[in-house]
Amino acid sequence: MPRKLKQPVFDTIAIVGVGLIGGSLGMAAREFSAARQVIGIGRTEQKLMKAKLLGAIDSYSLDIAAGVRGADFVVIATPVRTIIPTLEIAASALKPGTVVTDVGSTKKEIVEQATKLMPEGCSFVGGHPMAGSEESGVESALPSMFVGATYVLTPTAETSLDALQKMSRFVEAIGAKVEVMSPEQHDAAVALISHLPHAVSAALLHTVVKSHRGSALNRLAENLDGVQALRLAAGSFRDLTRISNSPPEIWRDICLTNASEISKAIDRLKSILGELQAAIAAGNEEELFKFFEEARQVRQAYLRLKDK
Amino acid sequence: MPRKLKQPVFDTIAIVGVGLIGGSLGMAAREFSAARQVIGIGRTEQKLMKAKLLGAIDSYSLDIAAGVRGADFVVIATPVRTIIPTLEIAASALKPGTVVTDVGSTKKEIVEQATKLMPEGCSFVGGHPMAGSEESGVESALPSMFVGATYVLTPTAETSLDALQKMSRFVEAIGAKVEVMSPEQHDAAVALISHLPHAVSAALLHTVVKSHRGSALNRLAENLDGVQALRLAAGSFRDLTRISNSPPEIWRDICLTNASEISKAIDRLKSILGELQAAIAAGNEEELFKFFEEARQVRQAYLRLKDK
Repeated sequence: MPRKLKQPVFDTIAIVGVGLIGGSLGMAAREFSAARQVIGIGRTEQKLMKAKLLGAIDSYSLDIAAGVRGADFVVIATPVRTIIPTLEIAASALKPGTVVTDVGSTKKEIVEQATKLMPEGCSFVGGHPMAGSEESGVESALPSMFVGATYVLTPTAETSLDALQKMSRFVEAIGAKVEVMSPEQHDAAVALISHLPHAVSAALLHTVVKSHRGSALNRLAENLDGVQALRLAAGSFRDLTRISNSPPEIWRDICLTNASEISKAIDRLKSILGELQAAIAAGNEEELFKFFEEARQVRQAYLRLKDK
Repeated sequence: MPRKLKQPVFDTIAIVGVGLIGGSLGMAAREFSAARQVIGIGRTEQKLMKAKLLGAIDSYSLDIAAGVRGADFVVIATPVRTIIPTLEIAASALKPGTVVTDVGSTKKEIVEQATKLMPEGCSFVGGHPMAGSEESGVESALPSMFVGATYVLTPTAETSLDALQKMSRFVEAIGAKVEVMSPEQHDAAVALISHLPHAVSAALLHTVVKSHRGSALNRLAENLDGVQALRLAAGSFRDLTRISNSPPEIWRDICLTNASEISKAIDRLKSILGELQAAIAAGNEEELFKFFEEARQVRQAYLRLKDK
């Protein structure tokens, strides 16, 4: 656990969208004294009251411009496609010197547009905390959400060094590890390690109930073989489909904002599965062994990398 | 937890291959008094001594024929491709009335060949307990391994009803739920819910390190983007690749013995991923939402099915 700071990194944080990630950021900032006060901004007063009750924020506002006005750090923690519209409203109310960030799962489009929206003296630093769960809402938020997690920052040539440094200090204060990369590198990497797994998880569920027409649930109801297969499903299927319990609008929007990298990652996966099919068809024992053995080695290399 | 039986289902069980599943069956049979005694058979005395020490077996033999001679229930719990060679050795030593089963992850080929090998008066009932873990070896065996698990039995027209009934009573005695289906139905179902997830998990790991030549680990070492992607990988990637820690020889052999169903399942998955790519390329919001929403619904239907 990180120690509490003697001097907060920011005086006032405004968090727009106090859900799982926004709420956890507020809790963490308060818990580790990374800010003197946290203002929550949202559209539903009841949710903001709950966030306050849970210790995610000190006060709240239903008005974006009013809420961000006094802040020296603004976090846009709304769904991906609401980030830019939110910033369009917030921009004119920002005071000079304010650092602005987002927590969106895709970065290239957002960073390009957000940077253009910044008023004189304010700086945007794209961010993506690699934490969360398949839960959503401030009810599932935790002050320790980011402890030990990787927190990606995606500066560009236009980002002020001062803003990047402040943001890094904040990220470290809440226990996360800063990883700096370009928005493009970020989008390619998360397509492989997050977006592709989600696409595959959903595709596995569709595969079990696949038939020619109708909704998935109707197909399942009509499809005794699919039901029988699901009745046999144990550990591996449960593990691989757990993340498909995520809100579909989030994944729709990630697909829309990282389209080309996701499609490229799916192409790669399909081609690798094609190579596996060729080895199966040829009864190639050596290739099949190698396929699973090398995957195991990469998995182990991954675990060693994470332990560091 | 099941209650201990007053009268064991079998007098003497011989288990060939006392690893994770064989060892757990021995422990469960002893714990729940489903057999009077359990004989372990293997090739390495040290492993059999360990199995005895851990309470998986009462005694052991290094000789298959000698080990199965007095048994009225024989379980072949060796790797998939050793099941038939083991039965070829065991067959002549079986006494009339003996029930023989296996725990192989594929059933069609095994059941066909095993049924032909049975001497007069003995009956083969193909079996597949849907339990286990990515661990292996008797060290990881547990008497409660099958409690609440589905245990598939795959009788054919030639299977004796008496053998099927005894085997069912044994399966229920160790706490599992019997699911009866044909070997063909079994193989199609497990291709979808077990073999495909394993193939996909390994393929995801290969996708991250993909390049044109060399071994996966060399590619990873040379490939900074792959390393960077792995450093970002969190919950979803960890979950989806956990099962890739399984022994590669097991998955090679499953691919070899269930080739056509696995390849069919991969085709289905590739075609579904292709549909997703089309929706992404078209920016089709409605289709993308439906893709993830329906997957979530099937996941929830699966959880309800498992709760029953």
